Amino acid sequence: MSILTRPILEVNIDNIIANYKTLQKIAPNSVAAAVVKDDAYGIGAEVVAESLYKKVGCRCFFVAHGIEGEKIRPHVGKSEIFVLQGIGEDCFSSFKKAKLTPVISSSEQFAFWKKHKIEGIKPAIQIETGLNRLGFRESDLKKLSATDKKEFSMIMSHLACGDEKDHFMNEHQLSQFDKLKKIYFPNLRASLSASDGTFLGEKYQKDIVRLGAALYGINTAPYRPNQMKPCIKVLAPVLEIATLKKGDFVGYSATYRAATKRKIAIVSIGYGDGVPRSLSNVGKVFFDKNKNHLEARIIGRVSMDNIICDVSNIDGLKVGDMATIIGDFYTLDDIGRDAGTIGYETLSRIGKNPRFIRVYK
Amino acid sequence: MSILTRPILEVNIDNIIANYKTLQKIAPNSVAAAVVKDDAYGIGAEVVAESLYKKVGCRCFFVAHGIEGEKIRPHVGKSEIFVLQGIGEDCFSSFKKAKLTPVISSSEQFAFWKKHKIEGIKPAIQIETGLNRLGFRESDLKKLSATDKKEFSMIMSHLACGDEKDHFMNEHQLSQFDKLKKIYFPNLRASLSASDGTFLGEKYQKDIVRLGAALYGINTAPYRPNQMKPCIKVLAPVLEIATLKKGDFVGYSATYRAATKRKIAIVSIGYGDGVPRSLSNVGKVFFDKNKNHLEARIIGRVSMDNIICDVSNIDGLKVGDMATIIGDFYTLDDIGRDAGTIGYETLSRIGKNPRFIRVYK
Repeated sequence: MSILTRPILEVNIDNIIANYKTLQKIAPNSVAAAVVKDDAYGIGAEVVAESLYKKVGCRCFFVAHGIEGEKIRPHVGKSEIFVLQGIGEDCFSSFKKAKLTPVISSSEQFAFWKKHKIEGIKPAIQIETGLNRLGFRESDLKKLSATDKKEFSMIMSHLACGDEKDHFMNEHQLSQFDKLKKIYFPNLRASLSASDGTFLGEKYQKDIVRLGAALYGINTAPYRPNQMKPCIKVLAPVLEIATLKKGDFVGYSATYRAATKRKIAIVSIGYGDGVPRSLSNVGKVFFDKNKNHLEARIIGRVSMDNIICDVSNIDGLKVGDMATIIGDFYTLDDIGRDAGTIGYETLSRIGKNPRFIRVYK
Repeated sequence: MSILTRPILEVNIDNIIANYKTLQKIAPNSVAAAVVKDDAYGIGAEVVAESLYKKVGCRCFFVAHGIEGEKIRPHVGKSEIFVLQGIGEDCFSSFKKAKLTPVISSSEQFAFWKKHKIEGIKPAIQIETGLNRLGFRESDLKKLSATDKKEFSMIMSHLACGDEKDHFMNEHQLSQFDKLKKIYFPNLRASLSASDGTFLGEKYQKDIVRLGAALYGINTAPYRPNQMKPCIKVLAPVLEIATLKKGDFVGYSATYRAATKRKIAIVSIGYGDGVPRSLSNVGKVFFDKNKNHLEARIIGRVSMDNIICDVSNIDGLKVGDMATIIGDFYTLDDIGRDAGTIGYETLSRIGKNPRFIRVYK
């Protein structure tokens, strides 16, 4: 019997590489850029960026913040690194040092850029087409002079509903994008789609597709089976096995009560490790026993360091056995749904926790 | 006008110190131990532990994992560091190197301990009194020999409903604890309560109170006004201000639609920074303008790097102005409640994100 205490996060870099290649085939006429913002959704931006740079020749990256760009620069040679949140006083040194390309989304940021240009860099311009998040509105575009327009090297926008194949917003945003590009930046490289839009077909792919979630195994085209391979597994050890009598309560605020005698396992992972607390009395984990993949429900509240699972139907379970929290069968998308959110948020939380034993494959 | 892109996390160490002193007064006859697990709930275990060690003489600490104990050891002299998840093969070297005291919660862990004792260390024993999480059940206690019992230096348990003053579980767990201690470990130091139990009065305080959430400003006695001072502030800059026409949609999946013309601000923080996605169309932020603290609702989905706020009623707002995401008025408890969870989970998420400009006061 092993006595273990720490959860394990396994990252499968080969699957990220495989996903990149699959996505390249889906958008064969576009540059496949890798989105490694938010520390590659928690997976580790440096290792992901370096692998894509070295193994599949990725030469275009997107991050959210200047500091994120600075962090990956040593790993991606002279690749283009676009910074989605743009440039400002608090991140200017990162841009200068790491030769980052800002995505300029407002007149104010553009004014800042014109005062603080960095030699050899031509920013991208983001335009607003329906998401109503960052981007020049048409009223702002009208104010750009002919000289202003020459500052930019790429035009981009972002879809609101790209994961819903037939959503009216997709066609609407596409036609807005094509219209505005034609008027204001007819000769620039264009990028409209993240992972989800990439699956909507060639019209949406333009010159650069920005691949994040799908690269990391999330199904961004949920209207069809996932073509992506999962890239993380999360496991956690059983610390203790115990018995509940009929009527016993479990966990904080006593939200679970045993109706019959139950066998429970206390598993060493909790919301402090990124397991959403909203899985309380809702989520499940799996145990591999006797060649079966057996489900055990989370009972009671998820606490910071532990979850409690009903293992009444799992014979032969021992202290030290590993529960699968996220795996090939119960994916990021599954846990996201059960937690009342999406796989993106769960992935982004999980990967940031230093208590994991982290294994890169 | 400032052009800024990064969110700011301000940590007020003085308030953590003040909270420690307040809690010492509430439990004047107990040792006030600091719970700094999960990187001090994301605040930074090293800085919190060192401050409490140097400024208020704290000499007893609790962490969840061996690696957490190893990390704080250089900052707390020869203080006692208890490790709640216990000891195992994957963390043994931390215990040995940093002279950590395991909390032993199962017969299996105790068997491991007996094989791998560390000189000069006497573990704590955790007993189960009603939470049905980690701890020796009475059936396990009965199996301990007289020699076994001499291994331990402290007995502890944990309350399930300590934040509900009149919950029947409190009295039940207290009487279980007192009964089992009297039978099995009459002479040991005892610890029953975390922050919440500390507020339940002297009977619950025993020899050591374990202070975590309250130290960090969370109201663990929500049946009365919070006596604790807030210890974090989260701010994020406005990247862009724009106008919605009647009928415009906002954010992913177009979940918000403007019924009238609105003014919106795009604020540079999102779930990638720990702002729960469940605040979509629910949460709020505040702007300090003209000596007022003005509310702006989050509209549409929270995305990874941005939130969009309705600022129609805020005059004079500019790009670069800072939105208060968590502050003295809108606290961790408030944001936890609005996100459908608790302040503990929100704090634990927020502090782990490297994109913040982090300021310790």
